[in-house]
Amino acid sequence: MTAELLNGREIAKSYRAGLAEEVEKLKNLGITPNLTVVIVGNDGASLSYVRSKNKAAEKIGMASDIIHLDSDITESELLDTIDRLNSDDAVNGILVQVPLPEQISEEKVLEAIAPYKDVDGFHPMNIGRLYTGQRTFVPCTPLGIMELLKHTGSLEGKDVAVIGRSHIVGQPVAKLLTDQHATVTLMHSRTQGMIEKLKNYDIIVSAVGAPGLVTGAHLKEGAIVIDVGNTVVDEKLVGDVDFESAKEVAGFITPVPGGVGPMTITMVLNNTLLAAKWHNGIE
Amino acid sequence: MTAELLNGREIAKSYRAGLAEEVEKLKNLGITPNLTVVIVGNDGASLSYVRSKNKAAEKIGMASDIIHLDSDITESELLDTIDRLNSDDAVNGILVQVPLPEQISEEKVLEAIAPYKDVDGFHPMNIGRLYTGQRTFVPCTPLGIMELLKHTGSLEGKDVAVIGRSHIVGQPVAKLLTDQHATVTLMHSRTQGMIEKLKNYDIIVSAVGAPGLVTGAHLKEGAIVIDVGNTVVDEKLVGDVDFESAKEVAGFITPVPGGVGPMTITMVLNNTLLAAKWHNGIE
Repeated sequence: MTAELLNGREIAKSYRAGLAEEVEKLKNLGITPNLTVVIVGNDGASLSYVRSKNKAAEKIGMASDIIHLDSDITESELLDTIDRLNSDDAVNGILVQVPLPEQISEEKVLEAIAPYKDVDGFHPMNIGRLYTGQRTFVPCTPLGIMELLKHTGSLEGKDVAVIGRSHIVGQPVAKLLTDQHATVTLMHSRTQGMIEKLKNYDIIVSAVGAPGLVTGAHLKEGAIVIDVGNTVVDEKLVGDVDFESAKEVAGFITPVPGGVGPMTITMVLNNTLLAAKWHNGIE
Repeated sequence: MTAELLNGREIAKSYRAGLAEEVEKLKNLGITPNLTVVIVGNDGASLSYVRSKNKAAEKIGMASDIIHLDSDITESELLDTIDRLNSDDAVNGILVQVPLPEQISEEKVLEAIAPYKDVDGFHPMNIGRLYTGQRTFVPCTPLGIMELLKHTGSLEGKDVAVIGRSHIVGQPVAKLLTDQHATVTLMHSRTQGMIEKLKNYDIIVSAVGAPGLVTGAHLKEGAIVIDVGNTVVDEKLVGDVDFESAKEVAGFITPVPGGVGPMTITMVLNNTLLAAKWHNGIE
């Protein structure tokens, strides 16, 4: 192996230690940041993800509540719950676990969360502020990727291929990379000769969910490879990148699991801390 | 000349004729779309730009008012004016001409406009909706560029270089092109070897304000060239592209003036029509 491992678990651990210190300082001022997660129904994967966020928050000293609602709840009942959380001064961050049951409009629910408590950064107002360069909650996966990339050096002038154009990962990470003066090409299923073009890029961020899409043969020598893929194959989590071949060519590489994943939850905590600070007039 | 001219004046003229028909239909329903433009101070270029929007609106049968305020107006007086326009049912579109005097926060003023009257599409809520794929007012210059590109054929699979990363032109046009299944590289002042790379692209959109930046020697044979540059040199408006050399290599090219410019004002009218329709529950 020639590539340096971008160990998301370790980087997340040290980042969370820093957050824990900040939480401690806020508590000394009488402020306990609170993350409240709303989940509708009993999907096993969703429940386990919600519990892991909840535990992670408590582990760094935050308060965290789970509001678990029946799968047959009406849209207006869910909107009432969100209204109540919006006006509850003790709640700093609100997450609503998606997907929601079909009788409920996800769009309506995400827009109902007060933008200053929207720690996922999915509210249109917060997405808009990201693009106009105002203070906002940056979506957690892109923010986590940027934190990983800080361990690789300056991004200025680097040519980056982002594969996948979702508004949750691909588009916002392209925006954040551009802000760091990288030159980003946003690739997707309709890109001509995509795999052959990858050799031209210093950094590859793959967020598709297509195991084995990127292999070592496709990479420029020394490229930085960020694997956001997250597919369950034979009960194992696998990324978009063929790690075994890619690690022989790349300069830096994230594993799956243990790369981007731990950073995402870390950035939920980061944004909750910011929400608590901003709500209390602390910059 | 081998390139086909993308004649913005003609394309805008025929587009506005279509808008005029739609305005006529709305009037038959008792709805007269109204565009109200607010200008602060007496900058000559701004005044002339505001008047041209006003005239263009009236020419297609819309109502249009100009609210001309003194340059020493306070921020709260301007915000009061906007509040009044927000609650005036006769007003469908509100434009505030920028730049504003230094005692007034542009950000605060643009956010004060009700999103459903923000026909410039600069409100963070509307920018956010653009990125989440919801119904919104698309910023006028990017929307005008997309209309010009409709005259060149399908964009699917095309490689596009967008030069300039502003949130008014470069970033939103990159988003719109991506939605049309083009593969976009967003270039800027820190891009390495930018000019040499242009030969790899099927479409170039230059929005920098650097006369002569792109010449025929930099282009792929048959490339589509959209010149958003808009610089006054020796009292003449010039673009980023050296038209004389570029037109010998390009497949399609916009002139400056008479290319993107007329499309921008046309899209202000387009968005005002949409505002009037949506406000009255017409899709």
